[in-house]
Amino acid sequence: MAADFFGEDARNGFEQRIELRSRLWAGRSKHQQIEVLDTVPFGRALVLDGALQTTEADEYCYHELLAHVPLLAHPAPRRVLVVGGGDGGTLRHVLQHAVERVIQVELDELVVRVCQEWLPTLAQGAFHDPRAELKIGDGLAYLRDARERFDVILVDSTDPVGPAEALISEQFFRFAAAALHPDGMLAIQTGSPLLMRRELKTAFDRMDRVFPLVATYLGCVPSYPGVLWSFTIGSLRHDPRVARRSPPGETRYYTPELHRAAFALPAYLAPRPAKAPHDVPLAVGPILG
Amino acid sequence: MAADFFGEDARNGFEQRIELRSRLWAGRSKHQQIEVLDTVPFGRALVLDGALQTTEADEYCYHELLAHVPLLAHPAPRRVLVVGGGDGGTLRHVLQHAVERVIQVELDELVVRVCQEWLPTLAQGAFHDPRAELKIGDGLAYLRDARERFDVILVDSTDPVGPAEALISEQFFRFAAAALHPDGMLAIQTGSPLLMRRELKTAFDRMDRVFPLVATYLGCVPSYPGVLWSFTIGSLRHDPRVARRSPPGETRYYTPELHRAAFALPAYLAPRPAKAPHDVPLAVGPILG
Repeated sequence: MAADFFGEDARNGFEQRIELRSRLWAGRSKHQQIEVLDTVPFGRALVLDGALQTTEADEYCYHELLAHVPLLAHPAPRRVLVVGGGDGGTLRHVLQHAVERVIQVELDELVVRVCQEWLPTLAQGAFHDPRAELKIGDGLAYLRDARERFDVILVDSTDPVGPAEALISEQFFRFAAAALHPDGMLAIQTGSPLLMRRELKTAFDRMDRVFPLVATYLGCVPSYPGVLWSFTIGSLRHDPRVARRSPPGETRYYTPELHRAAFALPAYLAPRPAKAPHDVPLAVGPILG
Repeated sequence: MAADFFGEDARNGFEQRIELRSRLWAGRSKHQQIEVLDTVPFGRALVLDGALQTTEADEYCYHELLAHVPLLAHPAPRRVLVVGGGDGGTLRHVLQHAVERVIQVELDELVVRVCQEWLPTLAQGAFHDPRAELKIGDGLAYLRDARERFDVILVDSTDPVGPAEALISEQFFRFAAAALHPDGMLAIQTGSPLLMRRELKTAFDRMDRVFPLVATYLGCVPSYPGVLWSFTIGSLRHDPRVARRSPPGETRYYTPELHRAAFALPAYLAPRPAKAPHDVPLAVGPILG
């Protein structure tokens, strides 16, 4: 019998596929199609609307980059907001830090329940931590009406099409900036710099209109299409490229040296020497559109 | 009609495929099977024994990393040896520097001729530069018998199976070290740190037995399987992580900041903090074996 493979649709003729052992669960919430796959290279994987979100084997690459970089660049993060992140991996990494309170706003309750059942190593009990509070709802509406203020906001969303499109709108970034303490920062995953260059540039430009400091950093998440992945921080005061503390406990991806290094973009993404963190112009370059 | 795709065999259930416009040329030398493909995402591509070697669109990612990092870490490279690299891309990048003489030893003359015909943007006339001399032959035998001494040796070979296996032998590294001036260094592509972890560790350990300083650095070459790629430098005296000059002319991948950053490995490759360039232990980690 031919092997069963999972792959997102080819982009610009470029395709990545992973072999499956089995398809463990599939269902539909009112927001999206949800699947859990058992893969040969990465163990179990969560797929939403056909796009791979996270896997057991390499979730730490993504989550350490998304959580540790802004939390270690902030001088003293006490209150954190997570938007999205229903698998619980981001929350788990945030709770490794000396934070007092983490609010998580996830749109799709079924994603949380499915991940608790099928991918328990992602959250590892994080949702039961007394410092954490899960709210089911829309992140943009939550921030619009928020009375709490946060030190760090993490946006752990699907790619910016469909339900997550609002989370890279300029309006979202304005609500988020208004909900931050004066030394706060927001970090967001901004997709593949190779395969989704335009989406990255769009998100960067919108953040650049709202935040005094904006910088993109890169890391490799092997299960994601194109492997190379981008994250962007908008900061009100502090340079996000500078790690101010050691990481909390053992890490498998993050190192203090790698923190700074992740902001060193290849010339095709930063054609002019970056003079300041917000001066990282993105150009649509020759690779993969 | 279904689209035609090229992909190397899946490794550990992980596979990357690129769509083809056409297959332009195929033939066999006495060393290997040679193909030239026209691909949708990367333009023309050279394939040897089924493994993609280089493409028009992203050759600069690979060649700038292989050539500029050691040449800019060396205080004054005058004489350079290139082993392999029949497409001429490495030679072209070496000749951008103020070098006096470059000897290139390529095993397979047919690779050079096919690339001159089908991939002329790789060499761009480099083989006709008066400073360059092409020798057809075996790199290990050349170094064993070499009377010339070099400042920098670049090994631009196929993956370390088949004809290129000798180029990561400890004997090869000993011949190379003996053919270097006292402040010389050797750089070699060491494959995918995700999909060929064992080969990388083997090459690193052998270099570590020969060179006082050994350090692995990473970059992203989108057309290569797994995208993330490794290079390793063995150096007799100088820290290869330090860029001593600005790059020669415009670059599309390399930047001075990225030079240092490329040596900041994720924790899964460098589990202990690196105290010195040679102290970069590699561990077989959880991703992709």
